[in-house]
Amino acid sequence: MHSSQPFELLILGSSAATPTANRNPTAQLLNIAERFFLIDCGEGTQMQFRKYKARFQNVNHIFISHLHGDHFYGLPGLLGSMHLLGRKNPLTIYAPKELKEIIELTHKHSDTFLSYPMHFVFTQHKINQLIFEDDKVEVYSIPLKHRVPTTGFLFKEKPLPRNIDKYKLEKLKVSFAEIHKLKQGFDAEDNYGNIIKNEDLTNDPPKPRSYAFCSDTKFFIELIEDIKSVDLLYHESTFLEDKKDRAKETYHSTACQAAEIAKQAMVNQLIIGHFSARYGSLDDFLAEAKTIFPNTELATEGSTFKI
Amino acid sequence: MHSSQPFELLILGSSAATPTANRNPTAQLLNIAERFFLIDCGEGTQMQFRKYKARFQNVNHIFISHLHGDHFYGLPGLLGSMHLLGRKNPLTIYAPKELKEIIELTHKHSDTFLSYPMHFVFTQHKINQLIFEDDKVEVYSIPLKHRVPTTGFLFKEKPLPRNIDKYKLEKLKVSFAEIHKLKQGFDAEDNYGNIIKNEDLTNDPPKPRSYAFCSDTKFFIELIEDIKSVDLLYHESTFLEDKKDRAKETYHSTACQAAEIAKQAMVNQLIIGHFSARYGSLDDFLAEAKTIFPNTELATEGSTFKI
Repeated sequence: MHSSQPFELLILGSSAATPTANRNPTAQLLNIAERFFLIDCGEGTQMQFRKYKARFQNVNHIFISHLHGDHFYGLPGLLGSMHLLGRKNPLTIYAPKELKEIIELTHKHSDTFLSYPMHFVFTQHKINQLIFEDDKVEVYSIPLKHRVPTTGFLFKEKPLPRNIDKYKLEKLKVSFAEIHKLKQGFDAEDNYGNIIKNEDLTNDPPKPRSYAFCSDTKFFIELIEDIKSVDLLYHESTFLEDKKDRAKETYHSTACQAAEIAKQAMVNQLIIGHFSARYGSLDDFLAEAKTIFPNTELATEGSTFKI
Repeated sequence: MHSSQPFELLILGSSAATPTANRNPTAQLLNIAERFFLIDCGEGTQMQFRKYKARFQNVNHIFISHLHGDHFYGLPGLLGSMHLLGRKNPLTIYAPKELKEIIELTHKHSDTFLSYPMHFVFTQHKINQLIFEDDKVEVYSIPLKHRVPTTGFLFKEKPLPRNIDKYKLEKLKVSFAEIHKLKQGFDAEDNYGNIIKNEDLTNDPPKPRSYAFCSDTKFFIELIEDIKSVDLLYHESTFLEDKKDRAKETYHSTACQAAEIAKQAMVNQLIIGHFSARYGSLDDFLAEAKTIFPNTELATEGSTFKI
């Protein structure tokens, strides 16, 4: 039961480098407990927000995987619109350090002074790092292998407090401070000094949920360790298996390779995207991945995935 | 009669700074005699090309009026897609000089090396300049008055050769060289040395056509001289007349002001665009402009204007 805390992903773009008439470059909006995380921001992302009736002013954290244009060319426009619509809330961007230079030069020459504070957290592509943390969520960067420095991102709920059996609690006299201890997994005392065993009054909370975003990357087996057993995995799948050589050359993956990673990492569900413009229909991507990992879906524009 | 030589404008974006669900930022595609000129390139322009089934690889010249984001944030993505799709033809960009710096830094950090030669022609915003010329077309920059250096652009057909009366010509013996002289407006000689008066054998060619693009600018009367009697005028119209003060503050124009310019410049047709996102319907823009200049149309996405 996570009814009070959403964990939901909206796909805003599923295209590889060259967009098509109906596929936009990469962008995803993740809502964990009303924290809205934008993951990559290809050209047209601000229009995709409007199309799918999502509010970009809710986003306080933007994660950019790498500096190929199809993953960040929508950022200057989005930052500008946030400003023009009167944003005051701070915005933090997690990205390779060179992005700051590009944004600053663009703002300088367009005479732009943002109405809100903007911070950068620079990512490193060779090590795992905790790059964001609050009381409910933590985000780690994941090293990927692409032609330029690239990271994936792992979004994890923090462990939830233990569930207290309210029926049993009603029969006891216990202070708020002791209830808090019970929620944290400790034993407690009632108002008369009697020990209450944690296991007698609490149940396990739901397992913390997790989402791993991996784009763009070639197939490499070391990735499995970083995304082990996540509930939902996005893994790029630029090509079909018949273009395996092309995938290797360009440091991208095939649908089969994405599925192989999902299978070996024992994730619950796989979603695939970043489809090359050469493919009209995406049916073969799904069919190919499912031969290896049946619980696969296409991460196409407007799809939502709830955990 | 211009049947053999198109002069046609396609509107790709009509929105002011913040795009809406159905209005994209400024971009227009002009075809004069199969020269394809892209005028401004707001975010999403490459997708608009696909939506309206126009080919961006036909564009060899891109004109950027100024460096506010809604007029050029689509350029890096378009340049990238031209490259990824194997373009070889040279591309020239006419723009304020700072744009080169932005594009070069972006390409550097995204490890991009274009497959085609890209040239820049830097515009100046205080004087008229001939910035492009070939055998059929010339383009001038026009000084505008906005918050940052901004130019409009005037596209003009070159005078066409005089029409020769083929019926009369058939009865004479005249060399190709002499026919050429006739087309240029000179008298000629037939093969026997007789003088042929130009007026006896030729008729006036069609009047050269012209299109003036003026965005963004505050209302200023000196503009009239630069766009006098053009066939088609695009003049920005960010606001309605009730926001005249806001227009003045932000160096933009109202629909009435655009119409006033069209009227005083005695143009044939006016089209208006760059509508603020605050307006849902555009009916009032058209109504307002028509009270002053009846031959006005809205320059909305997908509209085409033929001269």
